[in-house]
Amino acid sequence: MVKTFTRQLNTRGQGDALDLTSEVAAIVSQSGLSAGLVTVFVTGSTAGLTTAEFEPGVVHDFDAMFERLAPRHADYRHHLRWGDDNGSSHVRAALLGPSLSVPFHDRELSLGTWQQIVLVEFDTHPRTREIVIQVMGE
Amino acid sequence: MVKTFTRQLNTRGQGDALDLTSEVAAIVSQSGLSAGLVTVFVTGSTAGLTTAEFEPGVVHDFDAMFERLAPRHADYRHHLRWGDDNGSSHVRAALLGPSLSVPFHDRELSLGTWQQIVLVEFDTHPRTREIVIQVMGE
Amino acid sequence: MVKTFTRQLNTRGQGDALDLTSEVAAIVSQSGLSAGLVTVFVTGSTAGLTTAEFEPGVVHDFDAMFERLAPRHADYRHHLRWGDDNGSSHVRAALLGPSLSVPFHDRELSLGTWQQIVLVEFDTHPRTREIVIQVMGE
Repeated sequence: MVKTFTRQLNTRGQGDALDLTSEVAAIVSQSGLSAGLVTVFVTGSTAGLTTAEFEPGVVHDFDAMFERLAPRHADYRHHLRWGDDNGSSHVRAALLGPSLSVPFHDRELSLGTWQQIVLVEFDTHPRTREIVIQVMGE
Repeated sequence: MVKTFTRQLNTRGQGDALDLTSEVAAIVSQSGLSAGLVTVFVTGSTAGLTTAEFEPGVVHDFDAMFERLAPRHADYRHHLRWGDDNGSSHVRAALLGPSLSVPFHDRELSLGTWQQIVLVEFDTHPRTREIVIQVMGE
Repeated sequence: MVKTFTRQLNTRGQGDALDLTSEVAAIVSQSGLSAGLVTVFVTGSTAGLTTAEFEPGVVHDFDAMFERLAPRHADYRHHLRWGDDNGSSHVRAALLGPSLSVPFHDRELSLGTWQQIVLVEFDTHPRTREIVIQVMGE
């Protein structure tokens, strides 16, 4: 059995992160499915998904790591194409990836206590993001 | 219901990227399944999969980011083992990952307009790649 | 049909890596399922999963890449919160991701000959890890 949901969320631009755990857990809990896989997917090419301990220190450190790896104010070929300023956003998002799959069992996500499902915004301005949450199982 | 397909693709070596979106969309559309998950997986340990805006600027910028992170001509322990020259390929591919899962609904992939499914070649010479595309759903 | 298993594994701390391939292959082979998807997930926010050629050179090179990207002995905001020393572990793990999905067909994983399923430990001390292995298919 497959159930697919979409949610819209507002972000504040590069470096912002949102905790989706309670939303995803509620969908799993109300799905009527006991065991299976939930896939969380962000539409668009300048945001990503992962798990992390969701506290401001880790969120800051994660952004700082990406700033070393793909600095926001460096030159990017992508800027030449559209006059965009978000080349750093594209390469960071492609590296992190748009998709996260989490098994569940007895209606409970297999997350650790300090492990949250996190949407990471990489774009250089605030965005409204569409998130697909798909539950598959029995 | 599960349907598994394989495709072979030729790449031109490190820095090359191929857009798999239309192939994956066609498989989903013809699968007879309405909703579910498609998993794209690349066999081998020197290539990876992600989504990105597939345009030459982003492809170049993504390669340049990996070159800063794991330079092609640096020393790697892996080179000592087999006399290979592709240590950079192995660590880049392990970081990006070989697998991408994309939900679909009403036979449509949950991708954004500027978001393509992209195979990234990291090996130092042209390769023939085997891609597994698996559709699961109802 | 869905089957979910958990395994506990001991790691030796940051830079350690464990090959899970034979364990995952055995679970798939004994599941009674012919085709489907196996998802491997590590509970906790300081370890990750990927595929790689599992040999000591690649394991060393992968750790060295993360040390350049997020040095163990740098300053992290996360350290200020709990007095922890594992800020590097959190950002490395969030970048790699906790989840890996591998299609199987005719009871065989779609892995290449030199492609293993690898648990990567990022925490700064030895840990007992819980791994969830979930098989879904028909």
